[in-house]
Amino acid sequence: MTRLDELQTPALVVDAAALDHNLRTMSAALPGARLRPHVKAHKCTTLARRQAALGHRGFTCATIREVEGLAAAGLGDDLLLANEVLDARRLGAIPARVTVAVDSEQTIAAAAAGGVREVLIDVNVGLPRCGCAPADAGGLAALARRQGLEVRGVMGYEGHAMLVEDAGKRSQLVSDSMAILRAAHAEVGGDVLSAGGTGSFDRNRVATEIQAGSYALMDTAYKKLGLPFRLALSVLASVVSVSPSYAVADCGLKALGMDHGNPTIDGAKVWFCSDEHVSFAPEVPVRVGERIRVWPAHVDPTVAYHERLHLVAGDEVLETWQVDLRGW
Amino acid sequence: MTRLDELQTPALVVDAAALDHNLRTMSAALPGARLRPHVKAHKCTTLARRQAALGHRGFTCATIREVEGLAAAGLGDDLLLANEVLDARRLGAIPARVTVAVDSEQTIAAAAAGGVREVLIDVNVGLPRCGCAPADAGGLAALARRQGLEVRGVMGYEGHAMLVEDAGKRSQLVSDSMAILRAAHAEVGGDVLSAGGTGSFDRNRVATEIQAGSYALMDTAYKKLGLPFRLALSVLASVVSVSPSYAVADCGLKALGMDHGNPTIDGAKVWFCSDEHVSFAPEVPVRVGERIRVWPAHVDPTVAYHERLHLVAGDEVLETWQVDLRGW
Repeated sequence: MTRLDELQTPALVVDAAALDHNLRTMSAALPGARLRPHVKAHKCTTLARRQAALGHRGFTCATIREVEGLAAAGLGDDLLLANEVLDARRLGAIPARVTVAVDSEQTIAAAAAGGVREVLIDVNVGLPRCGCAPADAGGLAALARRQGLEVRGVMGYEGHAMLVEDAGKRSQLVSDSMAILRAAHAEVGGDVLSAGGTGSFDRNRVATEIQAGSYALMDTAYKKLGLPFRLALSVLASVVSVSPSYAVADCGLKALGMDHGNPTIDGAKVWFCSDEHVSFAPEVPVRVGERIRVWPAHVDPTVAYHERLHLVAGDEVLETWQVDLRGW
Repeated sequence: MTRLDELQTPALVVDAAALDHNLRTMSAALPGARLRPHVKAHKCTTLARRQAALGHRGFTCATIREVEGLAAAGLGDDLLLANEVLDARRLGAIPARVTVAVDSEQTIAAAAAGGVREVLIDVNVGLPRCGCAPADAGGLAALARRQGLEVRGVMGYEGHAMLVEDAGKRSQLVSDSMAILRAAHAEVGGDVLSAGGTGSFDRNRVATEIQAGSYALMDTAYKKLGLPFRLALSVLASVVSVSPSYAVADCGLKALGMDHGNPTIDGAKVWFCSDEHVSFAPEVPVRVGERIRVWPAHVDPTVAYHERLHLVAGDEVLETWQVDLRGW
């Protein structure tokens, strides 16, 4: 058995009990096909297998590589690429059930040309990102059907609601967004209304399936919402240098997603991150060689920097999993 | 010959002429051993070979993996790991000339125990990161020598000066830092005063070797300094969705280092980045399928997300290079 202190740092570590709690809590709230776990948050087929073992056989993906990897791992019952693509040939070649989001004539044409058979009409429900204007959804669905595509329904991600800390305001934004999605669905047809995420899993009553991903590992941004999920993911780092007023550990910009700001270190104030370092002021002095946990502010772009993650219980490394769905 | 529009996006592309200009400009300013290129900025042995071909046979590294990779690529004449490590066994096993930075009893002991033979005393010259207090440098050098290590000299990175836009202020900070390094060197001895970076390459008169890395590819943060280097690195992205007031391209948080803020898109205002997307308001309408260049704010953590980079001239992809020094 490998011990935690034998790991080379920086190392992505996942607390086994917290992960298990998170997976089970979500499965109890959204059993089976009510949850379509988003793998972009962990990019790990081994972790996806745990989600599948709990009954979630359909997955949400953000990249073609994620779809390919899940299919190759035998997890291809029902894979949704919840993003638009302009060249769907790789998708069409995957020996699995693959559905892709479309929001324009061009992306519909790409899906058809690439040999993908099923699509969701991606509807803009308030987040300024992909998705057609709600009024265009019906027309695009008809266009897709004319091109021989099976239109399974609609998708509409209420991402602008996801990290709103005021729960009432978050509920209202989710509700407003889903009213738009429901209206679009009336024009589109099909069985699927795919939406939602970790921040709305317990208040999105309209979606037939929730695309949550962050709940499994969590991060400090989602933690602020008071959700029933625990911080499972941290970066194990070693203190490599100590000065009278601060210390430095070997976890920096290439081990952390930084778009949500600095990471957190318990009992310390984080000063700044450099490529391979975090400088921080600890409340209690630390020693060179001491190991600390660095809590990322954003899970997804953190995981994407790492080749593997280690499942740990206390001081023991239980398993090491490849982060095998990175890249495009 | 692969054409640029055949690349799957997002793709890291390097303008061949800009890269060549940058490499030659720096080599003219700091020929041969006056420059010890830092590979952390590009993490690519093929690019390092170009630097070596211009006469720079010593390299600076930030990770053990970078040292191992350069040595395996035959670029091991003189490799400096400019960071502290607590377990130097992998370093000591590398069949190349390896020098490591030390700033404490513990890191000296680690170097000796790991079989590394040469060290630099890392001195804090004003950046709150690694490096011993200047007054301790002489004592640490003596300690290292007692443990059988060859002390080649000192290192002191004036990182707090590097991105200061006011050139006079930058010069002053560099000068102040190097006065500290010179004094420490007088206590330490040895031939080497290693310091500097892209922001100080032309004003650090004290260092015997400059550790610049960003100059080769550049980024929008360094561009603000008015240095004689061109932006060579961008992320090629495809517009995947268009709305009346904005558009979305497939280059997001997992393709960009975000610690220096949003990337830049010519003729557009960047709104925000998501995991796989950038939402932006173009001045002139763009079409779905159109390709754009996204200019990262920080080169190092951008490159670390990508498996490969493409050397391009106009619409042609000249070569594709592996970013083979990622990870730790």
